[in-house]
Amino acid sequence: MTKIEQANQEAFRRMDSGDPEWTGMVYAKDVLPDMDRYTIGHAGPPLAWEEMCGPMKGAVVGAIRYEGLAETEEQAVALVESGKIRFRPNHNVACVGPMTGMITWSMPLFEVTNKTYGNVAYCTINEGLGKVMRFGANDDSVLARLKWLETVLAPALQKAVQAHGPFNMKVLMSKALAMGDEMHQRNIAGSSLFVREVMPTLARVVEDRTQLTEITDFITGNDQFFLNLVMASCKAVCDTVKNIPYCTIVTAMSRNGTNFGIKVSALGDEWFQAPVLMPEGLFFPGYGPQDANPDMGDSAITETYGIGGFAMGSAPAVVRFVGADSVQAAVNYTNDMYEITQGRNTQLTMPNLDFQGTPTGIDIRKVVETGIAPVINTGMAHKKPGVGQVGAGIVRAPMDCFTQALLAFAKSVGVV
Amino acid sequence: MTKIEQANQEAFRRMDSGDPEWTGMVYAKDVLPDMDRYTIGHAGPPLAWEEMCGPMKGAVVGAIRYEGLAETEEQAVALVESGKIRFRPNHNVACVGPMTGMITWSMPLFEVTNKTYGNVAYCTINEGLGKVMRFGANDDSVLARLKWLETVLAPALQKAVQAHGPFNMKVLMSKALAMGDEMHQRNIAGSSLFVREVMPTLARVVEDRTQLTEITDFITGNDQFFLNLVMASCKAVCDTVKNIPYCTIVTAMSRNGTNFGIKVSALGDEWFQAPVLMPEGLFFPGYGPQDANPDMGDSAITETYGIGGFAMGSAPAVVRFVGADSVQAAVNYTNDMYEITQGRNTQLTMPNLDFQGTPTGIDIRKVVETGIAPVINTGMAHKKPGVGQVGAGIVRAPMDCFTQALLAFAKSVGVV
Repeated sequence: MTKIEQANQEAFRRMDSGDPEWTGMVYAKDVLPDMDRYTIGHAGPPLAWEEMCGPMKGAVVGAIRYEGLAETEEQAVALVESGKIRFRPNHNVACVGPMTGMITWSMPLFEVTNKTYGNVAYCTINEGLGKVMRFGANDDSVLARLKWLETVLAPALQKAVQAHGPFNMKVLMSKALAMGDEMHQRNIAGSSLFVREVMPTLARVVEDRTQLTEITDFITGNDQFFLNLVMASCKAVCDTVKNIPYCTIVTAMSRNGTNFGIKVSALGDEWFQAPVLMPEGLFFPGYGPQDANPDMGDSAITETYGIGGFAMGSAPAVVRFVGADSVQAAVNYTNDMYEITQGRNTQLTMPNLDFQGTPTGIDIRKVVETGIAPVINTGMAHKKPGVGQVGAGIVRAPMDCFTQALLAFAKSVGVV
Repeated sequence: MTKIEQANQEAFRRMDSGDPEWTGMVYAKDVLPDMDRYTIGHAGPPLAWEEMCGPMKGAVVGAIRYEGLAETEEQAVALVESGKIRFRPNHNVACVGPMTGMITWSMPLFEVTNKTYGNVAYCTINEGLGKVMRFGANDDSVLARLKWLETVLAPALQKAVQAHGPFNMKVLMSKALAMGDEMHQRNIAGSSLFVREVMPTLARVVEDRTQLTEITDFITGNDQFFLNLVMASCKAVCDTVKNIPYCTIVTAMSRNGTNFGIKVSALGDEWFQAPVLMPEGLFFPGYGPQDANPDMGDSAITETYGIGGFAMGSAPAVVRFVGADSVQAAVNYTNDMYEITQGRNTQLTMPNLDFQGTPTGIDIRKVVETGIAPVINTGMAHKKPGVGQVGAGIVRAPMDCFTQALLAFAKSVGVV
């Protein structure tokens, strides 16, 4: 067996054996390295203010106001242009965030621990639908909700997870997959299972009755609440695959709304980038392709782990949401992903595909050889800041990211 | 078109347009006709004490003790043998109950209203797993739980449904079907969706904190909690199909653990019976076929409505629970049921079968012509009272019920 094959098998073994658990709620200021109030974490590979798309700029303005560094949009923009704000990809510090993916000093984060390997990863709390920062909204209602997440929901969830003990995310994700969630654009099962598991403890630990009802309303009212826990779980698993010599498995796929970037195990933290593509899918009433911002967010960590678009065949109900032609088309997407992955997850199985495991471990060699680019189920943000989600669809990772990475890998092993 | 075809199309129209809603919690003593403390409702067609199977006798003893009519098993049996106890099929009074299906004077019932037609149907609250009366258990722990359902849970649920407004069961059932529930042996999605919908209201209306935690523990702790709401919903729909002249559609299929009975629209409340069959399936560790009681319960109302075994193709994850050979086998069961039904439900669709509707309206003519008997997913009770569930499996309705019914129908229309 070649060194590459051995390395890729080791990578698969780590991805398959990863066992993420939700272990606590923490604050960015307390756990992230080299963090200060002027550091803003964002989705995707690095980019400068000038390169940012509308929703990303809108979210940055909101994040600066949320941290009390500016009162108005004008002041916030001036602060950015003064060079005082440092932008940092979430992926560089074991974090992920959906869409714009803002992570700032005061924000609460889900802490997910990979029980098998001991590493942790973080993700923000899902804000729900409508006007939310992850789609670039930044008005007072958005900031008030974020403040509530910080001061009411996060402390309550921390009490709950401490009293309950770690939540085994792999068990919840396996159940959700069997219930038709692909866990990127469809999380209704996972969100419902999470509510069932957390409510008995919340009912005990949240003493203030008004807070208990607010919290219950919030976590029961969002079909995508589970997504952010899943993202942190996928990150906690994918991070264990980094820096394996000769390994050609992808450890991260992410988008900042302008560029799409991937990381490859043997190539460490180097990003291989190409312009993001525009998703094809279905639009909410009143919106169309002309309104959509290109692909954005760290949520492609789900596909990196082998769910989301990779598990579409197990989520027939998502077909009509992301605009796949038919259930068979969804199954075909999953079958295609087997062509570019190292193995099949032994615990995340898809009942309606005769309990086959999800396609796990994207091999850049196979992507380039087959010409099959990874498929991603994604939400679509309006290109103007703050309008919010306009639809959902299917997009491919740009092939150029993989050809660049393969070339760099070939050089690194002295083949080129 | 023949009168029969016209009648059956009308029956299908009523089944397809039925719109069941959970509208309240009531007590048997307040709503059931001709009810007294000595009347015991049971699953299936009528039968005498002497004909009852072990679990049914065990449940009757428990029901008599629960109503305070006897303190010991001996006293309870003596009371039965004295002739003071009247046994009555639940189906005769718009009720259904799982397994032994005990319904007595003090018991709380889900009230489900068919919004389209105004009729109501009732079902008891699911007790959970382990030692429960529906499997024939009758010790003090069983009676204590029933008393808690009567005095704590039911009043809280009544407050909740009054504050929340009616719960649209068709919407919940349609979502659950899309999430892999066939709603007879698998209700994890429906139970989770129900928890998500009811918790915010419960958190508001249940003032006593200890009761709120007890209630939250109970309704979040049972994957089958949703089943009894589904059963009442199916009953509320199937009852609208009764007594249509010339109609050969089945309005009820039910089992008392000894006999299997069906009712047919044009033939009113006459039962057509045959001995129940033994399910084939999977047994919990430590149990085998020698432990199992034959088929039992009113829960086959789910198949009468077109879900349960009829929707097995949409519930691939249930395959490994009821012991179907493969996912394709489950799809084949559903496809077979199309052969014996009048139409396809236009709102209960199965995503992984390309959104086909569930097979709806069992036509006794098609059953006899094709020789295809309705398939039922069922739990298996231990044949000894009180041991509880020993497994789950698949069973067929006895063909003899349908041949008898068809002969009676032929006579009724003067063909024979």
